[in-house]
Amino acid sequence: MSLALPVKKITVVGVGLIGGSFAKGIKASGQPIEIVGYGHNEANLQLAVELGVVDRYATDMAEAVKDSDLIMLGVPLGAMQSALEAMRPYLKEGAIISDVGSAKMSVIEAVKTAFGELPARFVAGHPIAGKEKSGVAAADAELFVKHRVILTPTPETEQAALETVRSLWQLLGADVIDMEPDYHDEVLAATSHLPHMLAFGLVEMLNEHPELGNVFQYTAGGFRDFTRIASSDAVMWRDIALSNGKAISKWLRHYQQAIGHMIELIEQQDGDALYALFHEAKTARDKHILKKTD
Amino acid sequence: MSLALPVKKITVVGVGLIGGSFAKGIKASGQPIEIVGYGHNEANLQLAVELGVVDRYATDMAEAVKDSDLIMLGVPLGAMQSALEAMRPYLKEGAIISDVGSAKMSVIEAVKTAFGELPARFVAGHPIAGKEKSGVAAADAELFVKHRVILTPTPETEQAALETVRSLWQLLGADVIDMEPDYHDEVLAATSHLPHMLAFGLVEMLNEHPELGNVFQYTAGGFRDFTRIASSDAVMWRDIALSNGKAISKWLRHYQQAIGHMIELIEQQDGDALYALFHEAKTARDKHILKKTD
Repeated sequence: MSLALPVKKITVVGVGLIGGSFAKGIKASGQPIEIVGYGHNEANLQLAVELGVVDRYATDMAEAVKDSDLIMLGVPLGAMQSALEAMRPYLKEGAIISDVGSAKMSVIEAVKTAFGELPARFVAGHPIAGKEKSGVAAADAELFVKHRVILTPTPETEQAALETVRSLWQLLGADVIDMEPDYHDEVLAATSHLPHMLAFGLVEMLNEHPELGNVFQYTAGGFRDFTRIASSDAVMWRDIALSNGKAISKWLRHYQQAIGHMIELIEQQDGDALYALFHEAKTARDKHILKKTD
Repeated sequence: MSLALPVKKITVVGVGLIGGSFAKGIKASGQPIEIVGYGHNEANLQLAVELGVVDRYATDMAEAVKDSDLIMLGVPLGAMQSALEAMRPYLKEGAIISDVGSAKMSVIEAVKTAFGELPARFVAGHPIAGKEKSGVAAADAELFVKHRVILTPTPETEQAALETVRSLWQLLGADVIDMEPDYHDEVLAATSHLPHMLAFGLVEMLNEHPELGNVFQYTAGGFRDFTRIASSDAVMWRDIALSNGKAISKWLRHYQQAIGHMIELIEQQDGDALYALFHEAKTARDKHILKKTD
């Protein structure tokens, strides 16, 4: 594969599920690219080497990013800015910086703050893939196969840097599309951040309601699937809730209204309207979700 | 297997996913019990015979329940009362009547209305198992294996009838427990009916919000699992929403408040409280749901 810009060495900052899966995928591709992992937890980084996720690791940022052609940020959103500030003095001239954060406006702001401007070779990105499991032990070279990766270039973004990041994700089997960063944050608030809030909220509510006893024992597969995303990493989701808070709280309010409408229909015993609502939802899901291949 | 009361013939009224799976499971058990299917849709009943779900079928109620030792009602909640009224004149003396409805107080009311009292051999029940698929084609003799079946006897219920129904569900591999009918309806409102309303509500809201375009294309596995139950049968869920409306709307209101609390935490940018909420939810789910075997 030929890249728009040469990439011989990549540093993955934050070797968890997503950063680790990116690294593992690059290594599995057989490209002559060295992968260095950076993090604070040395045991985790040693595990990353043992699992073949990275070639080597460093806990010193200067050493980790030295001579690296591309830095991939896989840390939680709340740790982006400090990681960027820590690496800035040691970056190779012309190094590409990219990330996998679930909200893009806040990462763009963090880069602006850390660098005083948006560097031309910063390419914000977000792979639409995940598991409720976290950590490098769950890293999977196939995680992005046939999954969307959304890149959100700004007017400052250099085309060659954008195409280089695109090619790397395509190498991992992803379907890469471009999007405006603020539209990305709206869409993801509605389709991913909102459902996560709802699942966390339901489990927490049932856990905290003592009046019924332990009701989890009476649940089955429907509840298990509905709440699967409530087993996601709490730090990651705290940071998403804080970083994309405006869009998320807007959609939570829309959803409160939708629930209010359902309560009205139930209290009015309006069977026709309830049937219409459920039928339209089922039809939309069967059409748009069941027919998707991923 | 010896039953507390002799059962040589069972009529399943409403041969869909649950009624059909019950019938198929009894037949798969090899017990010398004849299974007759009753319904309005003859093509569906023919399919039930072809799939080995029932031995034969009738579209005439008198013929369907004639000489039957046990009637299992598998129709939607809204059709229970009319089915009971239709069969009443033709029931064999001493026949057991049971059902698989997802709300129990409304079925008990329907039986009272149809019979003028609660017959001693009426045993209300609810298997906690299902799929988003409906219809006899999805019937599965193994559907209830290691799944809870909740029986909700009343003071009128004869012990021998209760034990007979229990034995039949145990024959299908189910874990049968008894519960007060109103407690059942509260618990199921919280753990099953509420999540279904929430999933239908989310898909419908995103489908109806034109401002973002078709956002379903940007969803992945988390959304697919969260909304799986929104592909459930709309008639069945309309009837549940109407039949257990009081408990469901109560829990929808609790949930609105829980969302309001999350909105406050997000708008206050209270990272510690958000972390605590997500972490407690994750911990509860990992403990109570992931460790379940079903």
